Amino acid sequence: MTDSPLARWERRNGTVLAVASLLYLAAYAIRVLANGLPGVLHDLCLAVTFATWAVFLVDYLVRLRLSRQRPLRFLRTHWLDTLVLILPLLRPVRVVQTYEHVQRRRDEPRLSLHARVIAYASLSAALLGFAASLTVYAYEHVAPGASIRTYGDSVWWACTTLSTVGYGDMAPVTPVGRLVAVGLMGCGLALLGAVTGSFSSWMLQVFAREGENPYPPEADRPPGNSPGACDRTD
Amino acid sequence: MTDSPLARWERRNGTVLAVASLLYLAAYAIRVLANGLPGVLHDLCLAVTFATWAVFLVDYLVRLRLSRQRPLRFLRTHWLDTLVLILPLLRPVRVVQTYEHVQRRRDEPRLSLHARVIAYASLSAALLGFAASLTVYAYEHVAPGASIRTYGDSVWWACTTLSTVGYGDMAPVTPVGRLVAVGLMGCGLALLGAVTGSFSSWMLQVFAREGENPYPPEADRPPGNSPGACDRTD
Amino acid sequence: MTDSPLARWERRNGTVLAVASLLYLAAYAIRVLANGLPGVLHDLCLAVTFATWAVFLVDYLVRLRLSRQRPLRFLRTHWLDTLVLILPLLRPVRVVQTYEHVQRRRDEPRLSLHARVIAYASLSAALLGFAASLTVYAYEHVAPGASIRTYGDSVWWACTTLSTVGYGDMAPVTPVGRLVAVGLMGCGLALLGAVTGSFSSWMLQVFAREGENPYPPEADRPPGNSPGACDRTD
Amino acid sequence: MTDSPLARWERRNGTVLAVASLLYLAAYAIRVLANGLPGVLHDLCLAVTFATWAVFLVDYLVRLRLSRQRPLRFLRTHWLDTLVLILPLLRPVRVVQTYEHVQRRRDEPRLSLHARVIAYASLSAALLGFAASLTVYAYEHVAPGASIRTYGDSVWWACTTLSTVGYGDMAPVTPVGRLVAVGLMGCGLALLGAVTGSFSSWMLQVFAREGENPYPPEADRPPGNSPGACDRTD
Repeated sequence: MTDSPLARWERRNGTVLAVASLLYLAAYAIRVLANGLPGVLHDLCLAVTFATWAVFLVDYLVRLRLSRQRPLRFLRTHWLDTLVLILPLLRPVRVVQTYEHVQRRRDEPRLSLHARVIAYASLSAALLGFAASLTVYAYEHVAPGASIRTYGDSVWWACTTLSTVGYGDMAPVTPVGRLVAVGLMGCGLALLGAVTGSFSSWMLQVFAREGENPYPPEADRPPGNSPGACDRTD
Repeated sequence: MTDSPLARWERRNGTVLAVASLLYLAAYAIRVLANGLPGVLHDLCLAVTFATWAVFLVDYLVRLRLSRQRPLRFLRTHWLDTLVLILPLLRPVRVVQTYEHVQRRRDEPRLSLHARVIAYASLSAALLGFAASLTVYAYEHVAPGASIRTYGDSVWWACTTLSTVGYGDMAPVTPVGRLVAVGLMGCGLALLGAVTGSFSSWMLQVFAREGENPYPPEADRPPGNSPGACDRTD
Repeated sequence: MTDSPLARWERRNGTVLAVASLLYLAAYAIRVLANGLPGVLHDLCLAVTFATWAVFLVDYLVRLRLSRQRPLRFLRTHWLDTLVLILPLLRPVRVVQTYEHVQRRRDEPRLSLHARVIAYASLSAALLGFAASLTVYAYEHVAPGASIRTYGDSVWWACTTLSTVGYGDMAPVTPVGRLVAVGLMGCGLALLGAVTGSFSSWMLQVFAREGENPYPPEADRPPGNSPGACDRTD
Repeated sequence: MTDSPLARWERRNGTVLAVASLLYLAAYAIRVLANGLPGVLHDLCLAVTFATWAVFLVDYLVRLRLSRQRPLRFLRTHWLDTLVLILPLLRPVRVVQTYEHVQRRRDEPRLSLHARVIAYASLSAALLGFAASLTVYAYEHVAPGASIRTYGDSVWWACTTLSTVGYGDMAPVTPVGRLVAVGLMGCGLALLGAVTGSFSSWMLQVFAREGENPYPPEADRPPGNSPGACDRTD
């Protein structure tokens, strides 16, 4: 239907970009976490980091070209893509989308609307939390007076932050750590709010259907298209 | 209507499994909380633990058989059952469902949709919190430098965590305790989000009906089926 | 319309009960907060406490009688009234309802649905927070090792708890204080969730109407009954 | 259409007031943050503060006059304006509205309903957080035993408070600081609840549309008026 060159490009390169972004995240994780890494491996990770970033840049420029929009307008309508280009650690969030796209082409049974939102938002939040915990660990564990000293501490801190529990036994003290923390709060809480909201709607839906079907756990994969009509109203 | 062998099995064994899961939880609680338990009682609790777990295993295998699905597919479509088999402490969450099923057969007046979601989700959250406080207490109270030293502390910690208040006067310090805490945050917050969301919808509904009926507290048990039609739209 | 003896009783005694419950709260507050109270005033407060509680008891029994229900059934269908009878500090929450009832009789312009839910829920939460801060202060300020030492500390603690921020600089340490805190978390968070949810719906509604009317602040008091039809759908 | 003198006044002076309120905030920020400010500049800031406040007062009185309402009624129907007159730090929240009004006149493409609510509420929350962090810093950094010692600490505190994470490493200790904190919790959380709620609705909408259009990121700027009909129902 919408077979513009841009759409074709995006369809063809989705998987390449997803792999590149996972490579980027992996290389970053190894660089941060591996302490006594031999020089060769460290250089390899650095090379992967730059190579994948170059892939993102090329993709961005090609899409800018194919969209036939003026650069400033493209920058504004695709601000999320621009942000992701500058902060490639946010890139893996896009992986979830590609995975779902691939799965759809294979004609597998798709999840219900609420389940898809929950899966997408919680996976995105988990990837964001992973990237944030890596960056915070990198900046905090060497800072004087820091409470986050091991990577385990950093993961624990990311979990307490994303859930808004915030015990305060671990908290960033460096400016960069706090900046990352504020970003994680902003993005993560919006995503987890979407998870909670969808879960709440989904639960109301399951309980509303329960009258006809006495076994609610069977009801979470509704056949036909009646749920679609229902979903559109909420 | 849906009288497949699987449905018949599930209907017949619901109560047995509910009793078994409560026994499991009770035996676990006694083992964790009773300090100077005589050897015989301790062994009895251990025996109950294994016996009930065996019951869950048998039920799982029978349902796998009756479903006539390939094991891997069954494992994927019944991932919640599989998880509950591996972590039987999550099992009691299913009790709420069985209780409601029993009550329905006795033709008692049923609660409204919102009240049912609130009751189900808050009871599940309470059972999860109980299981989590037991496990966290078991691992934390002997750890050096832990802030959770008595079972009361652990319950207080679970309450502050579930409400996302998170004062931080109590927080787990052991890896297992933190893993349980993350699980409690994930499941508990989704459930309590459903409670809050349903309460909010219910309140809007009560206030919307108030115009016709000047006494809102009488309105929380609506007669007839008009609320059903209303509920389905939200 | 619904002029049963019970409805007439409730209409007639609403104001009396509201005044009694405010008197109860005031007497409790004076007893807790006034330190060097002369014996006569202290006894007067105690007398008011018991007198108002007796009023609640008489009202409960009269309503039980007029409802013509069996006691156990009445206890179950009016469990909120029963709870309020046992814990009269929760009573003032009902005041909001009476105030609105009085206002309606005076034919004043009523607020929109969302505004009413926000007003009711936030006032209830504030009254709950006031009662909780009084009780927590009474039990905590004499406890060894407590962080809540003045009434101001207690109010600050109640605010951080209700907002789920939970800094942890103040937290109850006595069993009774923690029990009250858990109650406040449970009720208060549900009420404030309703406030947030209604505010969110209301904001979407105002912005949706903005297209026709360029000045949104004028739109929060919609004339006619079009918003009513709209409200009922969400 | 609604060309009353009041509407004309509001349309004409919106930009003037927006500029005045930003000036007020800037002057306040400079006074609080600049430590070794020369006397002349300090006096200039003070003069700007009073001049802008006078502008707000004149605007309020003119609108009271043009509305032809009795003062008490005007005070009640425009309570938000009255509050903003007394606490001009809340004034900049109105700027967002003016900006949008200006943009609309320029016939630029408008954002979808959810995007507008998210933009408005999060900008308002950010401006509130900025004003609160300034005031809290002004009162806290000189208080004995305070944890908020630099302006960076104050911003970090405002972020942890708005997200309800509340680590507790920073918390106000002075009465004024705590009062501002409670105000920030009340307003900020309601606004961010609106952000989270709208984001959740928007995500459900994007995923519901995804079936027809395989590239969800393109779907966030829906053409035509179908989304309007959809938005009005939620």
